[in-house]
Amino acid sequence: MQDRGEILLHRLRGIVGDAGVLSDTAEMAAYGTDWRDMFHGRPLCVVCPATTGEVAQAVAACATLGEGIVPQGGNTGLAGGATPDDSGTQVIISLDRMNAIRRIDPIGMTVEVEAGAILQTVKDAVADKNRLLPISLAAEGSAQIGGLIATNAGGVDVLRYGMTRALVLGLEVVLPDGQILRHLRHLRKDNAGYDLKQLFIGSEGSLGIVTAAVLRLVPQVRHRATAMIAVPNISAAIRLYERAQTEMGEALSAFELISGAGLDLVAEHMGRSAPIQGADWCLLIEAGSSLSGLREACETLLETAFNEGWATDGVLAESEAQADALWALRESLTEAEAKAGGAIKHDISVPITAIDGFLRDAGDMLADIAPQARLNVFGHLGDGNLHYNVMNVTEGDAGRVNAGVHDVITRHSGSISAEHGLGQYRVSEWARLTDPVERALSRQLKDTLDVHGVMNPGKVVPIMREAHD
Amino acid sequence: MQDRGEILLHRLRGIVGDAGVLSDTAEMAAYGTDWRDMFHGRPLCVVCPATTGEVAQAVAACATLGEGIVPQGGNTGLAGGATPDDSGTQVIISLDRMNAIRRIDPIGMTVEVEAGAILQTVKDAVADKNRLLPISLAAEGSAQIGGLIATNAGGVDVLRYGMTRALVLGLEVVLPDGQILRHLRHLRKDNAGYDLKQLFIGSEGSLGIVTAAVLRLVPQVRHRATAMIAVPNISAAIRLYERAQTEMGEALSAFELISGAGLDLVAEHMGRSAPIQGADWCLLIEAGSSLSGLREACETLLETAFNEGWATDGVLAESEAQADALWALRESLTEAEAKAGGAIKHDISVPITAIDGFLRDAGDMLADIAPQARLNVFGHLGDGNLHYNVMNVTEGDAGRVNAGVHDVITRHSGSISAEHGLGQYRVSEWARLTDPVERALSRQLKDTLDVHGVMNPGKVVPIMREAHD
Repeated sequence: MQDRGEILLHRLRGIVGDAGVLSDTAEMAAYGTDWRDMFHGRPLCVVCPATTGEVAQAVAACATLGEGIVPQGGNTGLAGGATPDDSGTQVIISLDRMNAIRRIDPIGMTVEVEAGAILQTVKDAVADKNRLLPISLAAEGSAQIGGLIATNAGGVDVLRYGMTRALVLGLEVVLPDGQILRHLRHLRKDNAGYDLKQLFIGSEGSLGIVTAAVLRLVPQVRHRATAMIAVPNISAAIRLYERAQTEMGEALSAFELISGAGLDLVAEHMGRSAPIQGADWCLLIEAGSSLSGLREACETLLETAFNEGWATDGVLAESEAQADALWALRESLTEAEAKAGGAIKHDISVPITAIDGFLRDAGDMLADIAPQARLNVFGHLGDGNLHYNVMNVTEGDAGRVNAGVHDVITRHSGSISAEHGLGQYRVSEWARLTDPVERALSRQLKDTLDVHGVMNPGKVVPIMREAHD
Repeated sequence: MQDRGEILLHRLRGIVGDAGVLSDTAEMAAYGTDWRDMFHGRPLCVVCPATTGEVAQAVAACATLGEGIVPQGGNTGLAGGATPDDSGTQVIISLDRMNAIRRIDPIGMTVEVEAGAILQTVKDAVADKNRLLPISLAAEGSAQIGGLIATNAGGVDVLRYGMTRALVLGLEVVLPDGQILRHLRHLRKDNAGYDLKQLFIGSEGSLGIVTAAVLRLVPQVRHRATAMIAVPNISAAIRLYERAQTEMGEALSAFELISGAGLDLVAEHMGRSAPIQGADWCLLIEAGSSLSGLREACETLLETAFNEGWATDGVLAESEAQADALWALRESLTEAEAKAGGAIKHDISVPITAIDGFLRDAGDMLADIAPQARLNVFGHLGDGNLHYNVMNVTEGDAGRVNAGVHDVITRHSGSISAEHGLGQYRVSEWARLTDPVERALSRQLKDTLDVHGVMNPGKVVPIMREAHD
């Protein structure tokens, strides 16, 4: 093993130069662990190619020797998808150096970027041309385009613009054997043959490495409306959601749910207090449009909500600063939770009309197996996507709580990962809960594209073949 | 061969009953030919299953005997994807009888339907709940949901809502070995594992048969604006498009290009005259919104267009009837063209900024090889998708014209099929013009999922393995 590692290091240095290969333990530390310090690995080395050709050569070198490759972008994932195992043999391929914004077309509304470009940087560049790249998430200052595509990232704008998949028009991918699939088309419509890029979006680097992409842009909005509303219960929140769709339609971009307990955590640990106090549940609603008439629609919605008893309190932001302050509450939830001792996190989705039932059943399950647990539930109600985070649970109970929540989700026809992906964190739960036909077809796809099993091994699909395959 | 056919007929009758298998030549005629009467096949029989289980059994029966299966929906395709070969051995599986609308969820904004449901029927059903299924195309009165998914259908609303792919949340698919992949989730967000449904969307029945789907709905719009505008040239049209995106943003749903020659055809052969005469190019623009302020934005746009010299004439519809009359002009183009003697059709897309260059180069090419040709160019300018139809070409020149247009498209980084798919019509052109890595990966995918090559053979990927594979 030692010898093979030395041979590989030598070859990789030949491809990207000595400076492009990190093999010192201290230098590699930031790459071997995720940002939350939950997943820990020990790579053989970290390779930093500067071109697609170098990525291809590095992949081919690893594949020839049968060594595992772990693609890594901004390392902001939440499921350990970019963290290597602890064998000391896997090679991290970092896209850090491939960060060019190759071309912005404000008329065709596309941008072509390399995988290592940081989301915020790309958003700023297209904003200069009056265009928006509509992916909005807390990690946008360090998340990279390649990683966002590989995980099909979500965020707070999905309600309006869809997941990252909906924005990918073209991809360049290095395949597990080192060949390059070049499909960097700036086309909104292309039905010529199988849409191969779909294979790689959301496959978390287990089928190939995204090296560049063409993304779809949208016009910047001119008017913005942001409101925080207290609701008496989840049913009322859902009625309000339905009405908001009717009143604001395509202008509605976020419909977030926050619990009163969550706002208390933010007040206690982050020193930010909400303009609304004492409610069990609050909504944070945002809409944007090129058309005037947005504010009027938002006021009509609020009026209806009060008249119908769907809202008990509410505030409509009067300035950008007020709107930003409301969003700061939402964005402080995760940090407040961490300061309060952390939580067992779930990233679930169910049909919107099943949210109430899911919360009731999951609550009953917790009362049974972890009666001391406290909840911090928030998320994207309009997408049926909740972060159902369970606090005050002992490490010993964590597995049971996790499985319990996933069982309830499955009964409500939901997903155990709405937007964070499986990574290494949820692979075994996926295998436990997924239909055998779907599992077998996923396995088949992995084995076809990654014949030698070198591409991000153990992520998305389990390493071992299953007995029935 | 005769014997194997008899055995298969016997088995298929055992699965769906005698009435569910058509084998009489006259009864099969409508299924063996496409609606334009361009592709002609001779099936062994037409099977009409009533349930997913029956589809699965029928597929398994064909696969066991190694006979080709041709899935067929409303038979409205434009590339021969649903027409069998002329061997007399292939089995058409028609989804006609599986047409239930299983469930409409107006709050979660989803609809679950069987593959044989007709688009217009589903649109009407969800409209009753104030929701819209945003797929709009000429054939919507007979096109079926399964076929729309299998071809990733486009249409006039793609600019705003994306292709059919963007609306598919869940799928049920019978695989080429008769197994059933069940993934009928009503979820907007689901990142748990590979998104296997993407494989089947747009694969034209060559990897499996879609039997049911969950589709995303959107709110109905409350306000509508429709305008027809004469522009001096394509550059002006593109500047107007850019400004329309800025003024109307998400409300802009169609931005269609029609040539003056096309409007003349419609006047001559359909007796419909346009409110604008004598222009080389016209635009048909449609926008819709839940918000007030739409008409104002549209008027601002028109005013700017006249001031900037991007428009030379224009009309903004004052009523639904006027708007429908403008659309009737657009929708008569194909029939008028047919009455004028037909055309060699192309369904191409290029980056919007390349449209001008493409038209110039394609015109030069035609002047060279078919100087007597006349053009009927129209399409979805906002998507870069043109139907570049060449009239008055002899049958002998058709192949050269076709290849010539495709060569020019390829030089402009475009696609030879923006929305109609490859079917059997464009398979050889795809093979000629596509990068070898993409071709090989497509082949690999086909061979992995359809091991015995029974699923819609010869569609999308060529039948014979290529030498280099």
